Amino acid sequence: MQKPAETAVPLHEPIQERWSPIAFDSKPVEPDKLISLFEAIRWAPSCFNEQPWRIFVAISEDAESYGQLLDCLVEANQAWAGKAPVLMIASASTKFARNGKPNRHGPHDVGLALQNMAIQAQSVGLVTHMMAGFDIQKTRHTLQIPEDYEPMTAIAIGYPGTVEDLPEGMRERETSPRSRKSLGEVIFTGAFGTSSPLIEA
Amino acid sequence: MQKPAETAVPLHEPIQERWSPIAFDSKPVEPDKLISLFEAIRWAPSCFNEQPWRIFVAISEDAESYGQLLDCLVEANQAWAGKAPVLMIASASTKFARNGKPNRHGPHDVGLALQNMAIQAQSVGLVTHMMAGFDIQKTRHTLQIPEDYEPMTAIAIGYPGTVEDLPEGMRERETSPRSRKSLGEVIFTGAFGTSSPLIEA
Repeated sequence: MQKPAETAVPLHEPIQERWSPIAFDSKPVEPDKLISLFEAIRWAPSCFNEQPWRIFVAISEDAESYGQLLDCLVEANQAWAGKAPVLMIASASTKFARNGKPNRHGPHDVGLALQNMAIQAQSVGLVTHMMAGFDIQKTRHTLQIPEDYEPMTAIAIGYPGTVEDLPEGMRERETSPRSRKSLGEVIFTGAFGTSSPLIEA
Repeated sequence: MQKPAETAVPLHEPIQERWSPIAFDSKPVEPDKLISLFEAIRWAPSCFNEQPWRIFVAISEDAESYGQLLDCLVEANQAWAGKAPVLMIASASTKFARNGKPNRHGPHDVGLALQNMAIQAQSVGLVTHMMAGFDIQKTRHTLQIPEDYEPMTAIAIGYPGTVEDLPEGMRERETSPRSRKSLGEVIFTGAFGTSSPLIEA
């Protein structure tokens, strides 16, 4: 199912089309497409080019690694994400490698990398769904994540499924309209809370 | 000048082509293209769809607002960014609007929105350069950013310039090769530091 963004002007197609479905086809993702996702992460920008992202990935054919990531998700997410053929968990360095000082941009830069990946995925026919709903302590323990990295985001990736693939109770979520704040609520000029005059094309 | 990412497999074109130049043409950005950047920010995903991004934007034709943002940058960035026709500063909510609790995903979700914007920009022929180098306290004061928002990122946006537009001392930076860690250093399976077998296509 498609739920393109409702925008005042057209967006680049994979940006317009990207959304976060919960219905996935269990069909595996081709190795070359997986590599393209990793490369999109790799080539994102970051503060001082520190590349603070460390990404765990597992495919459903590798039951042990896949189960490891799936078990870190909260139950409500396991209920649908377990059909996605690829799972990821992204972590962010809390320090600059260059000098050991705190890197307040770590999570931000992981966000840059993951959205680069999400658009790359969309461009090759895949869909993505990022999740904050996972057990941070369990993730840290299971994946042996050191103290100076912070587990940030879980991601389900795969080909789109259909609403009929979902249990009855989850179908409404999939078909309900998407919503966003208006441009005037988030794009300011001059002072916080002052809608930019540039939003009126 | 172009510096496409060197990747094992081809990426979607605007992702492959995106980089962070410091040479900008001062030519204004068309209003519709600006709106498309705002819409790309607006439609990014976020934790609980909180949309924690609040973005300040100014164009060079509006000298007062533009000067306000330019003055927040560190001098080394002012030296090149002042030629870009569009400047932005992005801030992140530190709390969930729904319940007032800390939102650890605020900066991360701003990262998602800004990379969505960066790819949209690239797709319409614009280039972007994100900066951590700005004065956070000055920014907070100048733009009247409340305590529960955190200034995160400054961004220069415009049409690409040429190396010849840059002062002598900045040209080498523009032409030097881009670099990234190898996939094996950032894509793990099973445990932190264990390169994923999936990186070998």
